[in-house]
Amino acid sequence: MTDSYTVGIDVGGTKIEAVLVDGMGVVRVCERMAARGGADRVVADCARLARMVAGPYFPEVQAVGIGIPGQVDPTTGHVANVVNLAIVDVELARLVSQALGGVPVHVENDVNAAALGAAHMLDRGSETVAFLNFGTGLAAGLVYRGRLLHGASGSAGEIGHIPVDPNRFECPCGQRGCLETVCSGAAVATLWPTGKDDPPMPDLLAKAKAGDPAAQRVLAIVKHAMGDAVQMVTQSVDPELIVVGGGMAKTGQPLLDAIGEEVQARGRRCPFLESLHIAGRLRLAPPDEPIGAVGAALAAVHVSV
Amino acid sequence: MTDSYTVGIDVGGTKIEAVLVDGMGVVRVCERMAARGGADRVVADCARLARMVAGPYFPEVQAVGIGIPGQVDPTTGHVANVVNLAIVDVELARLVSQALGGVPVHVENDVNAAALGAAHMLDRGSETVAFLNFGTGLAAGLVYRGRLLHGASGSAGEIGHIPVDPNRFECPCGQRGCLETVCSGAAVATLWPTGKDDPPMPDLLAKAKAGDPAAQRVLAIVKHAMGDAVQMVTQSVDPELIVVGGGMAKTGQPLLDAIGEEVQARGRRCPFLESLHIAGRLRLAPPDEPIGAVGAALAAVHVSV
Repeated sequence: MTDSYTVGIDVGGTKIEAVLVDGMGVVRVCERMAARGGADRVVADCARLARMVAGPYFPEVQAVGIGIPGQVDPTTGHVANVVNLAIVDVELARLVSQALGGVPVHVENDVNAAALGAAHMLDRGSETVAFLNFGTGLAAGLVYRGRLLHGASGSAGEIGHIPVDPNRFECPCGQRGCLETVCSGAAVATLWPTGKDDPPMPDLLAKAKAGDPAAQRVLAIVKHAMGDAVQMVTQSVDPELIVVGGGMAKTGQPLLDAIGEEVQARGRRCPFLESLHIAGRLRLAPPDEPIGAVGAALAAVHVSV
Repeated sequence: MTDSYTVGIDVGGTKIEAVLVDGMGVVRVCERMAARGGADRVVADCARLARMVAGPYFPEVQAVGIGIPGQVDPTTGHVANVVNLAIVDVELARLVSQALGGVPVHVENDVNAAALGAAHMLDRGSETVAFLNFGTGLAAGLVYRGRLLHGASGSAGEIGHIPVDPNRFECPCGQRGCLETVCSGAAVATLWPTGKDDPPMPDLLAKAKAGDPAAQRVLAIVKHAMGDAVQMVTQSVDPELIVVGGGMAKTGQPLLDAIGEEVQARGRRCPFLESLHIAGRLRLAPPDEPIGAVGAALAAVHVSV
């Protein structure tokens, strides 16, 4: 008796992670390797890792899904401007498929892949799940009835470049006061430089809690923007679950608590917001699960069926 | 041979409008009457208008849909807080159904009904259509694959109370700088009082065009908030079409041009926004069509099939 398998790969700036998912959506194998820059290497590493994770089941792999940052066109499989991996432009789906002897390959934006993976792992009954990726940048992934919402131009969930405060920071995108200028990992590192390789958010939260006024000032700004981001997804698509993910989510429960405090404080001033029970919708992305790779596999299955 | 008919009713603060829609989605009859306040009268008027518009086809009416402002629960048919119609609380669906001898009645929020009607009349191929209702308040209705997106708590599209500028106006909702405090009909009437019963927007646009500096100042504020509203729906759900509706849309093409200018000016500063071609997605709601009533009928059909 044969089963149907799918491989999911999450290509990040520092590592590539792959999973083998069976026909029931269960992760059977998980492997990772260090990422190497350059389009040719990324193609070769994806193909190598797909074979590695599939092992003896490789002939039964129906599809491979890849999640990767940058501008990703899931329809054509074309990927552009992946700065961290020195990719200008690559026909990723076609080339990896070729390297794997013709297995269908599907590519997704990494945030969308993570959104799908997190929704699959945390939840089975919701109509809409929003995944807020507080990574180097800020973007959301939207899952509606178990499938990704891409939008007309693939920009659904691109809330990082909505200007929320015309008096605040200039954004490299050309606008001013974009959400991303305050509540992304890069923004927090600028607002609260720790001078070390440590991520700034845990330090910022700890110092603010200990009573440091400078930390409290910066944290108030960051929490405010995070509250705006949460309101934006809630009041646009009104999801059952709002998953907090991305690099900053490694801070864990203290970050979720900080966001929860912010939305609850807002609710005390505004009965309409209070009625939305936003804090109860917040979840932390599973910290040690390969959600990006799992989501990439699911996206490939959705396309191939 | 019998056909299947649906009645759609749009209950507004000043008038009630009803349509008879045939099985092909074509409007066959349209009737309107002045609205009267009080729950009992609204129930009686809806029932009377439904029989009137259906005429001899009444026995073939499969369902009646009603769009109404206020807090509307489409699942239970319960409606609350319709200030303009002096309704505190009414089991609208149950009571109208009873008055019509048991025909199934479905109720929707008026903005959602208008969104569905406008999407049906303007478009057949889009995955997502957003309807921006610049009425007394500001809210959006979202149509995905021909069906309404309600969200987990019926708040999908409630973008009017997203704060976009902490330094701007206090909102009766308890927050500060909500979009609705700037780009709703009520807000424009406050910012640009004409002292007459005329709607302020056409006057504001005309005076600004003629070079009046005060009008130009106010218009810049209003256009800015409208640009924010448009960015918010574009970057959250990325719709193919953005329909501009509500009372302010009666201003017509000059309003659409003003919003188009704003988003194009933003695109010139931000290549990402430019790449979204937002101005090309804007449409004016059909000004003389009963979109609210048609949408209410369609919503009732979607529930009954």
